[in-house]
Amino acid sequence: MEKFIYAPEIAKLGHVALVTENLEKSLWFFKEIIGLEETREVNGTHYLRAWGDFEHHTLSITAGETSYIDHIGWKAKRREDVANFARLLEDAGTEVRWIAAGEEAGQGEAIRFELPSGHRFEIYFDMEKPQAEESRKSVLKNQVYKAWAKGVSPRRIDHVNLQTAMDNHLIVTYLQETLGFKLREYLVNADDKQVVGWMSVTNLVHDMAMMSKPSVEPNQMHHIAFWMDNAQDILRAADILSEQEVGFVGPGKHGISQAMFIYVKDPGSGLRVEIFTNSYLIFEPDWEPIKWTYKEYQKNGSTYWGDRRRDDVDIQAVKA
Amino acid sequence: MEKFIYAPEIAKLGHVALVTENLEKSLWFFKEIIGLEETREVNGTHYLRAWGDFEHHTLSITAGETSYIDHIGWKAKRREDVANFARLLEDAGTEVRWIAAGEEAGQGEAIRFELPSGHRFEIYFDMEKPQAEESRKSVLKNQVYKAWAKGVSPRRIDHVNLQTAMDNHLIVTYLQETLGFKLREYLVNADDKQVVGWMSVTNLVHDMAMMSKPSVEPNQMHHIAFWMDNAQDILRAADILSEQEVGFVGPGKHGISQAMFIYVKDPGSGLRVEIFTNSYLIFEPDWEPIKWTYKEYQKNGSTYWGDRRRDDVDIQAVKA
Amino acid sequence: MEKFIYAPEIAKLGHVALVTENLEKSLWFFKEIIGLEETREVNGTHYLRAWGDFEHHTLSITAGETSYIDHIGWKAKRREDVANFARLLEDAGTEVRWIAAGEEAGQGEAIRFELPSGHRFEIYFDMEKPQAEESRKSVLKNQVYKAWAKGVSPRRIDHVNLQTAMDNHLIVTYLQETLGFKLREYLVNADDKQVVGWMSVTNLVHDMAMMSKPSVEPNQMHHIAFWMDNAQDILRAADILSEQEVGFVGPGKHGISQAMFIYVKDPGSGLRVEIFTNSYLIFEPDWEPIKWTYKEYQKNGSTYWGDRRRDDVDIQAVKA
Amino acid sequence: MEKFIYAPEIAKLGHVALVTENLEKSLWFFKEIIGLEETREVNGTHYLRAWGDFEHHTLSITAGETSYIDHIGWKAKRREDVANFARLLEDAGTEVRWIAAGEEAGQGEAIRFELPSGHRFEIYFDMEKPQAEESRKSVLKNQVYKAWAKGVSPRRIDHVNLQTAMDNHLIVTYLQETLGFKLREYLVNADDKQVVGWMSVTNLVHDMAMMSKPSVEPNQMHHIAFWMDNAQDILRAADILSEQEVGFVGPGKHGISQAMFIYVKDPGSGLRVEIFTNSYLIFEPDWEPIKWTYKEYQKNGSTYWGDRRRDDVDIQAVKA
Repeated sequence: MEKFIYAPEIAKLGHVALVTENLEKSLWFFKEIIGLEETREVNGTHYLRAWGDFEHHTLSITAGETSYIDHIGWKAKRREDVANFARLLEDAGTEVRWIAAGEEAGQGEAIRFELPSGHRFEIYFDMEKPQAEESRKSVLKNQVYKAWAKGVSPRRIDHVNLQTAMDNHLIVTYLQETLGFKLREYLVNADDKQVVGWMSVTNLVHDMAMMSKPSVEPNQMHHIAFWMDNAQDILRAADILSEQEVGFVGPGKHGISQAMFIYVKDPGSGLRVEIFTNSYLIFEPDWEPIKWTYKEYQKNGSTYWGDRRRDDVDIQAVKA
Repeated sequence: MEKFIYAPEIAKLGHVALVTENLEKSLWFFKEIIGLEETREVNGTHYLRAWGDFEHHTLSITAGETSYIDHIGWKAKRREDVANFARLLEDAGTEVRWIAAGEEAGQGEAIRFELPSGHRFEIYFDMEKPQAEESRKSVLKNQVYKAWAKGVSPRRIDHVNLQTAMDNHLIVTYLQETLGFKLREYLVNADDKQVVGWMSVTNLVHDMAMMSKPSVEPNQMHHIAFWMDNAQDILRAADILSEQEVGFVGPGKHGISQAMFIYVKDPGSGLRVEIFTNSYLIFEPDWEPIKWTYKEYQKNGSTYWGDRRRDDVDIQAVKA
Repeated sequence: MEKFIYAPEIAKLGHVALVTENLEKSLWFFKEIIGLEETREVNGTHYLRAWGDFEHHTLSITAGETSYIDHIGWKAKRREDVANFARLLEDAGTEVRWIAAGEEAGQGEAIRFELPSGHRFEIYFDMEKPQAEESRKSVLKNQVYKAWAKGVSPRRIDHVNLQTAMDNHLIVTYLQETLGFKLREYLVNADDKQVVGWMSVTNLVHDMAMMSKPSVEPNQMHHIAFWMDNAQDILRAADILSEQEVGFVGPGKHGISQAMFIYVKDPGSGLRVEIFTNSYLIFEPDWEPIKWTYKEYQKNGSTYWGDRRRDDVDIQAVKA
Repeated sequence: MEKFIYAPEIAKLGHVALVTENLEKSLWFFKEIIGLEETREVNGTHYLRAWGDFEHHTLSITAGETSYIDHIGWKAKRREDVANFARLLEDAGTEVRWIAAGEEAGQGEAIRFELPSGHRFEIYFDMEKPQAEESRKSVLKNQVYKAWAKGVSPRRIDHVNLQTAMDNHLIVTYLQETLGFKLREYLVNADDKQVVGWMSVTNLVHDMAMMSKPSVEPNQMHHIAFWMDNAQDILRAADILSEQEVGFVGPGKHGISQAMFIYVKDPGSGLRVEIFTNSYLIFEPDWEPIKWTYKEYQKNGSTYWGDRRRDDVDIQAVKA
């Protein structure tokens, strides 16, 4: 058989690096209310993950003057893909910065670069998969921490939803061609112009959504999502958030992605978190992206049923 | 950039072709009780799928003298992978039979061949994705049929679980090397010898399990699984099956795969069906297969909690 | 011991008699979508009940020129209570009409009378408890029909919610003193004047709510509620209603009563139906009614979380 | 109208007083794992209740040489019923001991006496309904504590299940005639002799079950049950108990009472706890007790579906 030569590929969403103007509140929110576990703290950065996340961290939180997303980390499929992505990006004129192994705790050598939309991405391959300490460790060999230890208690990180002032077709095409994302569903406006794309490299409907809005700051994050196993868990989350008097939108069900949701904001940083479940998986290699017109979006696509309110203050991605 | 040359790959489990000695009972069970939709009937073969399955069929049912599994269909990742797999298999001395487009309704050109374990696999790429007729069609653009029309109403096919008298390491290595399956979890017996492997080509923990048992017929199918979105749906299934006086095992939760289950048999053919939910997804490209000793399997691995009964009569795969 | 002499008492909400201007649509809605079972039809009146209702009917539907509630039936605690209530009511100047056994199918001798608010109540004791026919009968000895046969499939009738232009304190006091209802929770307006009372004769928080609104027709019904066992069942109902394009409000959770809800209207008659679950039970004989100020009502009392929309067109109770 | 004279009545199950040979373990189990709240500790007795229990305590735990149930408390319907019950019992030759107000923390004057089966009952009317302290208090006016603070987190006490060596018909008749319990469902053995009765004074199917077994100690408690709102909550409980390696039986669904269950034992005292949900309510004053033959009990009555294992070591009620 011939030797196979593969294009570099992204395997999955790895983590989000959050800078918060109120570290104490953000830690309270993510650890006590959402119920993430803290792997460890290194030099003031708190490395968190959900009970079912295998890697060292899926959310890092660091104190800062203002709140913003420092970067979004993606795991490459093969170790050599990191350098191959670097080469591809530099060939295309993108500035690439190498991050030494250990500069981000638990992580091997990685690269960081900015999308044309200004969002900063990181690509890594090596990442520690630390076990939980004895008292928090699951009795199951395929699960890191015990579930249900505190708060909402989601299983794992699910996806990110980004906002840009850029033309949607342009940035989505970039993500498809440069990073290998596949477009799964998309929304067009009244002029039949694409304004949102839901994309994935996995069997999820989306690892990332990119929403174009003329009015937004050049680059923003609309939300980071954590996955729960059951719709009922979303209702329990609603009870917990209500008792803590942390306001939220939902529950409801999206038509696009078929997912049940609650949106709640970290009171420390303003980062919106989607508590997310159900949805569907795409196994088809010949998937045809599903087009939603704005009319369809308003009827069924955005909110299939449930709470239809919106709140529109989003967190900036990459500090100005 | 260099031109990339890819090994042929399997994208997903496609369908199971069941032959039943009691067509009427099997159709009652799968259509009325499980609640699969019938895409159409062609020459006595009934092509069924769940409400969230996109392709033409995920289960076909045909009348026969005895009940058995005729073949298990897998969708290739690219159209050319079908011929590439044929070439690879023939090079390795495996007999490959070409199935003309349309010989199996809805399906393009495909190949069929037998595993060393005697199970017959089919690999195809082209498959119709018919819409539902108006009265059964979902109002959602990303969903084929309305959910909850009848019976248990699972979303989609999930996986197959096969049994063999062959050495487990041998057959699992074959599946890894020839077809690209990745081993996710495995069980060893008291002599530290591998006896079951859970494997996938997708982000699921398993698209297929292969269980070795010296006592079984050369090749058997332990079960086919259908996915539901919520644990509560499994409990509703238990109510429905109890009311219909169709016996079942469960509900319970597996440690391996972390899935909630019910096992119920088609009274027509004897084919065991797992109604399956929760579980976890594997996004890590550097996943280390999780080893379960027999002691761990008995404690947590097989039944983490719930109904621990077993029934051991399985359906033959491929007619003798 | 002395012989005990008991005041007449109401044991439970029995049924609602609906007149609809579109019988076909109302039957489609209640039988196919909500999934009530039809006990039988007598002289054009369809007698329905949920799968877990024991008595002959909990909802009757009859065609009429306009849609309205003909009467609301309550079951007395003892057979002699029917006549005792008649005597009490007549002594208080209320006109009482006797309904002969069988005039309403399945029912023994009963009385009908109008509340000061104009709502027509019926009190009966004897009511057939017919078994289901063989094909629809539950395998359980304590359950009438198989659950999950069709549509939303609630277990039983739960409560009624009435509207009046009358002073709330007056009508609630009447219901307490004449019929023995206990006040469980109540709402006052900005002037500290009671405007809604939730009342029960059972351990439920409410068998009946009475809401006073100056603007309403003298007597109206806001909704009739059916009970489901699990919150997840409400979400399944939302899927079913959405697929049938029957609009609804919810899901959400009330603070008052702590119940999860969906409100959906019968497209035939306009009668609003609450699909209702969770809530709490009151076993305390020394229960102090819980007072909600309008501010508390707006914050947590009405909608604790979820869909906060309201629709305000209600069905008339008793034909003008 | 004539003055009404009422027989004394029991309104509800109040609490269970547990003596444990391992206080530390019992407190860990009931507070950390089951997730009951501690109202307060008085003289070494810990007064606990679930987040939705209104009265001062529903379970009290005191250290002792051996583990046993000291008494089971029932709340009378009216204050004067306590003395009226005392009079009735003494007239029937039963020894009645008066408990002074405050002798049991939070409680007013009460009586204690032994059933013919040897189980010790307490009847009280006055009981404090303390609010929760600020940090644990629910934001809802009709709920005491925030839900989901710790562990399984049931809403409220539900029922007790007692065992006796006495003839079942005799003891059930006693409970009906002396204390006003209504028989809801019952089991007969192969000789058509009643062996178990499920009884209630509320709309629940049972506030108490009494099971006769020739082999048991004269008086035992099989279990105390706590209620959860949803079936899904039982599955979450199974996860939590499994992670804590506290063995349990279930989940499953009883035919009798139609309730989903898990049975788990307090490792401190050996008291079995049923985590209980769903079930049905009985509003009918003319309810005919449902008879289950032993054959029906084995088929559907005991375990309708799910885990059918039994464990048979029960805790003694009243110290020998």
